[in-house]
Amino acid sequence: MEFPGATTARDDARYLVVGAPLDRSASGRPGARYGPEAVRAAGRHFEDYDRDSDRTFSDCGVADHGSVGSPGSIGDRGEYGAYLESVIGEAVRDGLVPCVIGGEHSVSPPVVRAVDPSVVVVFDAHLDLRESYAGDPYSHATATRRMLQVADRAVVLGARAGAASEYDRAASDDVTLVAPEAVPDWTPDLAGERVYVSLDIDVADPSVAPATGTPEPFGLRPRVLRDAIRRVAPHAAGVDVVEVTDRDQGQTATLAAKLLRTFVYAHADATAD
Amino acid sequence: MEFPGATTARDDARYLVVGAPLDRSASGRPGARYGPEAVRAAGRHFEDYDRDSDRTFSDCGVADHGSVGSPGSIGDRGEYGAYLESVIGEAVRDGLVPCVIGGEHSVSPPVVRAVDPSVVVVFDAHLDLRESYAGDPYSHATATRRMLQVADRAVVLGARAGAASEYDRAASDDVTLVAPEAVPDWTPDLAGERVYVSLDIDVADPSVAPATGTPEPFGLRPRVLRDAIRRVAPHAAGVDVVEVTDRDQGQTATLAAKLLRTFVYAHADATAD
Amino acid sequence: MEFPGATTARDDARYLVVGAPLDRSASGRPGARYGPEAVRAAGRHFEDYDRDSDRTFSDCGVADHGSVGSPGSIGDRGEYGAYLESVIGEAVRDGLVPCVIGGEHSVSPPVVRAVDPSVVVVFDAHLDLRESYAGDPYSHATATRRMLQVADRAVVLGARAGAASEYDRAASDDVTLVAPEAVPDWTPDLAGERVYVSLDIDVADPSVAPATGTPEPFGLRPRVLRDAIRRVAPHAAGVDVVEVTDRDQGQTATLAAKLLRTFVYAHADATAD
Amino acid sequence: MEFPGATTARDDARYLVVGAPLDRSASGRPGARYGPEAVRAAGRHFEDYDRDSDRTFSDCGVADHGSVGSPGSIGDRGEYGAYLESVIGEAVRDGLVPCVIGGEHSVSPPVVRAVDPSVVVVFDAHLDLRESYAGDPYSHATATRRMLQVADRAVVLGARAGAASEYDRAASDDVTLVAPEAVPDWTPDLAGERVYVSLDIDVADPSVAPATGTPEPFGLRPRVLRDAIRRVAPHAAGVDVVEVTDRDQGQTATLAAKLLRTFVYAHADATAD
Amino acid sequence: MEFPGATTARDDARYLVVGAPLDRSASGRPGARYGPEAVRAAGRHFEDYDRDSDRTFSDCGVADHGSVGSPGSIGDRGEYGAYLESVIGEAVRDGLVPCVIGGEHSVSPPVVRAVDPSVVVVFDAHLDLRESYAGDPYSHATATRRMLQVADRAVVLGARAGAASEYDRAASDDVTLVAPEAVPDWTPDLAGERVYVSLDIDVADPSVAPATGTPEPFGLRPRVLRDAIRRVAPHAAGVDVVEVTDRDQGQTATLAAKLLRTFVYAHADATAD
Amino acid sequence: MEFPGATTARDDARYLVVGAPLDRSASGRPGARYGPEAVRAAGRHFEDYDRDSDRTFSDCGVADHGSVGSPGSIGDRGEYGAYLESVIGEAVRDGLVPCVIGGEHSVSPPVVRAVDPSVVVVFDAHLDLRESYAGDPYSHATATRRMLQVADRAVVLGARAGAASEYDRAASDDVTLVAPEAVPDWTPDLAGERVYVSLDIDVADPSVAPATGTPEPFGLRPRVLRDAIRRVAPHAAGVDVVEVTDRDQGQTATLAAKLLRTFVYAHADATAD
Ligand SMILES: [Mn+2]
Ligand SMILES: [Mn+2]
Ligand SMILES: [Mn+2]
Ligand SMILES: [Mn+2]
Ligand SMILES: [Mn+2]
Ligand SMILES: [Mn+2]
Ligand SMILES: [Mn+2]
Ligand SMILES: [Mn+2]
Ligand SMILES: [Mn+2]
Ligand SMILES: [Mn+2]
Ligand SMILES: [Mn+2]
Ligand SMILES: [Mn+2]
Repeated sequence: MEFPGATTARDDARYLVVGAPLDRSASGRPGARYGPEAVRAAGRHFEDYDRDSDRTFSDCGVADHGSVGSPGSIGDRGEYGAYLESVIGEAVRDGLVPCVIGGEHSVSPPVVRAVDPSVVVVFDAHLDLRESYAGDPYSHATATRRMLQVADRAVVLGARAGAASEYDRAASDDVTLVAPEAVPDWTPDLAGERVYVSLDIDVADPSVAPATGTPEPFGLRPRVLRDAIRRVAPHAAGVDVVEVTDRDQGQTATLAAKLLRTFVYAHADATAD
Repeated sequence: MEFPGATTARDDARYLVVGAPLDRSASGRPGARYGPEAVRAAGRHFEDYDRDSDRTFSDCGVADHGSVGSPGSIGDRGEYGAYLESVIGEAVRDGLVPCVIGGEHSVSPPVVRAVDPSVVVVFDAHLDLRESYAGDPYSHATATRRMLQVADRAVVLGARAGAASEYDRAASDDVTLVAPEAVPDWTPDLAGERVYVSLDIDVADPSVAPATGTPEPFGLRPRVLRDAIRRVAPHAAGVDVVEVTDRDQGQTATLAAKLLRTFVYAHADATAD
Repeated sequence: MEFPGATTARDDARYLVVGAPLDRSASGRPGARYGPEAVRAAGRHFEDYDRDSDRTFSDCGVADHGSVGSPGSIGDRGEYGAYLESVIGEAVRDGLVPCVIGGEHSVSPPVVRAVDPSVVVVFDAHLDLRESYAGDPYSHATATRRMLQVADRAVVLGARAGAASEYDRAASDDVTLVAPEAVPDWTPDLAGERVYVSLDIDVADPSVAPATGTPEPFGLRPRVLRDAIRRVAPHAAGVDVVEVTDRDQGQTATLAAKLLRTFVYAHADATAD
Repeated sequence: MEFPGATTARDDARYLVVGAPLDRSASGRPGARYGPEAVRAAGRHFEDYDRDSDRTFSDCGVADHGSVGSPGSIGDRGEYGAYLESVIGEAVRDGLVPCVIGGEHSVSPPVVRAVDPSVVVVFDAHLDLRESYAGDPYSHATATRRMLQVADRAVVLGARAGAASEYDRAASDDVTLVAPEAVPDWTPDLAGERVYVSLDIDVADPSVAPATGTPEPFGLRPRVLRDAIRRVAPHAAGVDVVEVTDRDQGQTATLAAKLLRTFVYAHADATAD
Repeated sequence: MEFPGATTARDDARYLVVGAPLDRSASGRPGARYGPEAVRAAGRHFEDYDRDSDRTFSDCGVADHGSVGSPGSIGDRGEYGAYLESVIGEAVRDGLVPCVIGGEHSVSPPVVRAVDPSVVVVFDAHLDLRESYAGDPYSHATATRRMLQVADRAVVLGARAGAASEYDRAASDDVTLVAPEAVPDWTPDLAGERVYVSLDIDVADPSVAPATGTPEPFGLRPRVLRDAIRRVAPHAAGVDVVEVTDRDQGQTATLAAKLLRTFVYAHADATAD
Repeated sequence: MEFPGATTARDDARYLVVGAPLDRSASGRPGARYGPEAVRAAGRHFEDYDRDSDRTFSDCGVADHGSVGSPGSIGDRGEYGAYLESVIGEAVRDGLVPCVIGGEHSVSPPVVRAVDPSVVVVFDAHLDLRESYAGDPYSHATATRRMLQVADRAVVLGARAGAASEYDRAASDDVTLVAPEAVPDWTPDLAGERVYVSLDIDVADPSVAPATGTPEPFGLRPRVLRDAIRRVAPHAAGVDVVEVTDRDQGQTATLAAKLLRTFVYAHADATAD
């Protein structure tokens, strides 16, 4: 099924939803392969109309590319990343804003390579700044580190877990940490930047988003997350939402679907003529 | 089973619990038919005593009528509504405060016809102000619109989703919207009114009440909901709690059962001699 | 997503998968609206190759039409039936064998009207021979009765529940009952007939297919069901599998998906040049 | 709620359904306290009419006493057993056939004391012949041993697990073991006996009845169980079905409810004038 | 499995994790017997490093004793309590800080007898101050009352439910109640005291900790709980976390595991040389 | 926790249980990483005594090595396989019969390299004879192919799915296929062979073993599986049970645990002096 409301033909679209059901490196609970279909299904009963932006989603110009690969079918990860990058690259060249639904966090670096932002804004409970994890440089636990190979800097919002070495890496000039408690008051300083937004759903508190691979207590509340997405969306050239699994009755996917719509409404509102 | 603590004989009672397991028009996830039994079971381990009102529930005078119809047995909805209205009407004539457990939100309009309030106070994530939904004027998505055919006005608390046409309808003088963020500070202006309280459990955040038909993020926290119920209960001639399904392990029904008890304690406290 | 292996373009196809997520009249546990996507997803890991027929599914010529309506979006049932009938009618006129995934059993009569068979072979725990149920002539509990308005006769396999009045109706010449215990030895007498196969998954034992609306113990084992499907498939002009819900972890949908493939392999094998 | 179809007034009834939600001594997975309500709910969608006996359940004369105690409320087990025995004793004196829904297997001995049979026919995966278990003579693991203090002999059907000492006890003249593989061919030799039937649902294979405290593979298939119940029912003065928990989506309770109805149909059929 | 990071040999340890899977007296939903393994498993993906204390868990000196008894194997509760007390007593004599994972709340009094604190700080939705419950002086509902037989006083944080008689008992000088709303501002006055911390996970809101025996709405948020644990940990000679069941997908156990680690980091930080 | 009854010290043992929670290559539903702990927990309530062999499990001489790696921690698969092979190799050199609990089927080839059998007897719904799957020669879908690099021949029992190329490979002299329907009558011809038994739990019907990665309908019934295990066990030098996930309520793990015990009882019985 397509993302609900993503009814625009690609040629007429401004946004392109792309599923990326990669699920290889989960060090916690697996199931991110079911993220794209769970998130698409969860949005089914949402109203088309958004009061805040006074817009309907179906008029925002969203197309759905479908998913790149299907759950369980993805073999070599290097090839997968290259192919995903090429799909997103084509979207970017067509002037589309990619809206990627993971899959594990490792899908973000290939997307970032295609979008080529100056700044990545990462919502995540974890720093994901390891150089390599369990011998794997492409693990979900290295996502932000890999994105920093493309972007000039990263703003990491809501992180509350990391190795000591990751905190060392985070002390560099190119990383800004915004603690969970500080997110409500965070004001983005992104004027003139090309921004990519990566939303690891585990940034939310586990009571809010229980169906994720590595739940970490003491996270963000839904409205805080919504408000931050609204603030950063106007600057964005691409977005993803990752690490949603199928291990609840739709609660986590419902939030993810809503935040993706929040992004589109806010972006469309800010960039309208 | 009866609602726990609803041990008063009907002839001696002030409150009458009535189950209404209608579950026909769900546009999201079905299961509201299991609401009455889930809510009754969930209250089983609550203390009889309430510290705030210094009252025991079993002394508040609550009887349980049982359920009107059983899950899956309900055929023609028009007939069902008429019958439910007659059951509630008899309770009202007997001087009882009906406490209805849904079932989908479509059970509220027949109850409201029996209670005949001047004001309905509706807790809901959705405006429910459509004239008709999917060709059905009695859909859950029209509940508040239908209630306004009886009541002079509606106060809608916590709504965050609706069609543009519903927001137009809400702009009329007979509708007051209180946004989710404004509910904590809401002061009811209900002196002298005959009030009916309709609580669609989806007004709560999906993390708080995941087992409901159309979960909508960014909703109310439990204490905010409790405090608002306490403020409005003294004015009420009837109450319902609707849209609880069986799709969690009891979390949603536990909240619904507690809020119904909160209503009774607060109402009994305010109306005691 | 499409049914796995249904990769043939419609113009080149012999079989057309159509989802029909109707879920209105469930007298038991609801959720048949999720049948089409559950069955499609469940088939994802099956081998393309089938040893018995020595065929690959992707070479059998199967296209996927998508679903007619989406879960929860279906309003007026009369309109829905008419529209479904028109979709299937077009497929039949195009020479395609419709393979419908319900939804509740009420989707079968409109499909049967489009296929216009002389015989319907119904696998069902229930007779479904009521004239009307709970005031509703289009209820799932009337499915076979409605199909008999089109077909000359019905063979009902595996039934073990019905009202006395249904057993009376079943005593007529146009109904043949094959008890669950007799299904293994059943030999179809269908030469020269135009056959429609309707498979209510509750014909299987609840231990085999727990996720269904009205589970009825003492049903068929998987291989018995498989073998009967193989015997009847060569005669068929259309097939459906209905009453699969989402209330397990995929067990029921996996069986349904496999039986649909079994049908296609066997039909393709029997009708090959 | 009452057991579906148990609509006869007690004074006019021949059978009395009694819930006994004891759940104290589970050595495996707890939850038998939810058995009575799960079994009652599961029977809701069954047909009133039974083809084999040509009887309707609602005409068999079944009343529902409700449950003795509620889940979690049961304190001292000795007192509970005594009270349960008195409730059943009164039913027996009134000429009723008690149909008890557990709860753990420890509810059977008090019921047996009230029924005072000459033979107990026990369906169970386990011998339950320990003198005491974990220091507790009233544990579920001692149920059949305790019943033998009342009855002259026990026939244990389907057992496949026990301590060596239990097999020693089973070698006595007053115990007959029928292995799972032998149950299909078992012919009861019960003429002139006063029989009590105790059905521990774990006698079924775990694939058939997964929601039970101590699942034991290699058990009975549903039809084998049904046929054995039919053979023994005509001789019975009482029956129970125990050890059903809430840890599935209703599959186990559906079987238990059906077997209880099977018992009533068969008993009514055999004892009709 | 051992508690993740509890890799220190006992002889070199400062903290000793002990599982206590007692699950006998649950008046609500059972399953606390699975608490120890659920909590141990939930911590598996946590980072070893904690930013706030700048410490790694594996360097804090934590050993895991394993569990005292296994789920379902515990017979006589008096004997169990005595044995648990002896195990903890030996740990205390060895200079270890016991960190007990329940099991129902009844495991705390034996642990308290071994630790012999002057003050118990109890996090709990319930007062647990009954002298006896359902005839049982060792019920979970009497836990704090029993602990007061050892400690001079109790501070009860977050309680919102109790019988009138329990509130009377709480009015004595030796009990301090801190209402849920007051916990964020609570400052412990524990200088010079020997403190035992007992954390009944139901003190958290049911949306935060749904898998517990007697969920009670309107509880603590995760960060409030974390901050209170941090404030009290420096004074503690022992801690437990109890009443976690297996009736969710790990959300509750994840919080419990994190709070236990929070305790250790904070205690180690405060008591470092 | 250890496998229940695996209480023998390694030095005195004949059997060594080893967990191998690898879960990387699942092409269906992931979760095999939880297999070892699920299977260990499921066996907890089994009787120590086995009637058929007249033996107690705890006297059979079983030690538990624990698991090699923990869920989610396994990085490079080549290294993992090598390490697992070395652990098993040491056991074999110590004269122990390894009893491995997976994990995905890819754990079997390293174990087989350590055991070095002449014949592998593989229970599996799938042929697993691909040379490589999704670019991965070590995928679960290649398990039997990899094992054939060590063993002279393979007997594959219960297989009902495979690619055409796998059936071609199966036609070679070194592979014997026994169809599911033929397993009850299968007589092993293994005298003088060194046999390794690999049990992919998906060989059972999905109604029997729903919690597995790639469920395939029409599989074996529990007693058929049990009897085949008993027949082959006397010849075996090692055994594994793989592809058990956590996606049910213990049903699948209960069967797996029981079959592992069945193996030990039968092996001990056959090899006793
Ligand atoms: Mn991440
Ligand atoms: Mn993360
Ligand atoms: Mn509503
Ligand atoms: Mn609503
Ligand atoms: Mn049907
Ligand atoms: Mn049916
Ligand atoms: Mn028993
Ligand atoms: Mn038993
Ligand atoms: Mn407590
Ligand atoms: Mn508590
Ligand atoms: Mn395999
Ligand atoms: Mn397999």
